[in-house]
Amino acid sequence: MKHYRKELTFRTPTRRALVHITPQIEDCMRESGIREGLCLVNAMHITASVFINDDEAGLHADFERWLEQLAPEKPYDQYAHNGAEDNADAHLKRTVMGREVVVAVTDGQLDFGPWESIFYGEFDGRRSKRVLVKIIGE
Amino acid sequence: MKHYRKELTFRTPTRRALVHITPQIEDCMRESGIREGLCLVNAMHITASVFINDDEAGLHADFERWLEQLAPEKPYDQYAHNGAEDNADAHLKRTVMGREVVVAVTDGQLDFGPWESIFYGEFDGRRSKRVLVKIIGE
Amino acid sequence: MKHYRKELTFRTPTRRALVHITPQIEDCMRESGIREGLCLVNAMHITASVFINDDEAGLHADFERWLEQLAPEKPYDQYAHNGAEDNADAHLKRTVMGREVVVAVTDGQLDFGPWESIFYGEFDGRRSKRVLVKIIGE
Repeated sequence: MKHYRKELTFRTPTRRALVHITPQIEDCMRESGIREGLCLVNAMHITASVFINDDEAGLHADFERWLEQLAPEKPYDQYAHNGAEDNADAHLKRTVMGREVVVAVTDGQLDFGPWESIFYGEFDGRRSKRVLVKIIGE
Repeated sequence: MKHYRKELTFRTPTRRALVHITPQIEDCMRESGIREGLCLVNAMHITASVFINDDEAGLHADFERWLEQLAPEKPYDQYAHNGAEDNADAHLKRTVMGREVVVAVTDGQLDFGPWESIFYGEFDGRRSKRVLVKIIGE
Repeated sequence: MKHYRKELTFRTPTRRALVHITPQIEDCMRESGIREGLCLVNAMHITASVFINDDEAGLHADFERWLEQLAPEKPYDQYAHNGAEDNADAHLKRTVMGREVVVAVTDGQLDFGPWESIFYGEFDGRRSKRVLVKIIGE
């Protein structure tokens, strides 16, 4: 069994942002030399997400509006978590979007359907945060 | 390490449907000959889901009503994604339900609790869409 | 390839509870002897969750309040699933929180960011329920 590990670092200029990271994960695939296996991609921080969906700006605007309805940022004092912190909503938003994806590796490629793209979902940005890529297989 | 890959195709007659697919995944298990490992089952389309829950019609009706509350299909123009498309709600519903499941493989079986069943969740159907099964192990 | 399997049992005194289980999963890691691979931790019951988030009491209170807004326990008759049962809300809450986590194993450790902790999320407790830990690798 072969294994590969890499950390990617992101610092978004805004509190919330969706960053398309498929190209970076494809670089990891090539670097790993693994042809068959599983690729785990996960946020290492609990106010961020890794998820798979469409690379379409309208949908990303819909995600922003929808998540703000489900778990609004403000008023900050509606959350028990917010005292020293102001990011309770980011913990909830990341829960909706998910921490991780597991992608099949076939013939040395991410085994994707036609429109699958991997995103880093930042919900409490403006600081450096990391994504872990772990690939196992042969 | 052994590895196995299969695509399953679904075409639901309605826009939304929940399809019980545990028997198909068990067929894949047998075909793979893998005794110990991990089985990934994921929707290859970003308006569909693979998830684990109860095979009970009342609960499925509850899912339908609940998802329509969280991310209503109509009016279509409430979503920025809907112009050429009308399926923004399907992207959001699939996000709540999840893209994939990872199931332990033990003694050549899906290692399940008493009521775990795998479902394909379709949120924009009436066309052929695929599910990927990837099993790795030995 | 090495593989390891363990069931953990939980019986919470209340209907809903969040239980920090990172220490038990770290025990499994040591017992497995696996240095590089993937660790799957999943609820074996469909009214419970395994998820990763913050070990902070305020946030846990926020989760409780938020999940009750998204999928209220009562009135029981708002759900088609509730007849012989009264736990439809628990199926929905577990859907939001997720069934499973997959964690990278590196150098014999759970490969975690600074604040990642694993929780068992119980939404229909007061009876024994199980979590499955499956680790594969080398």
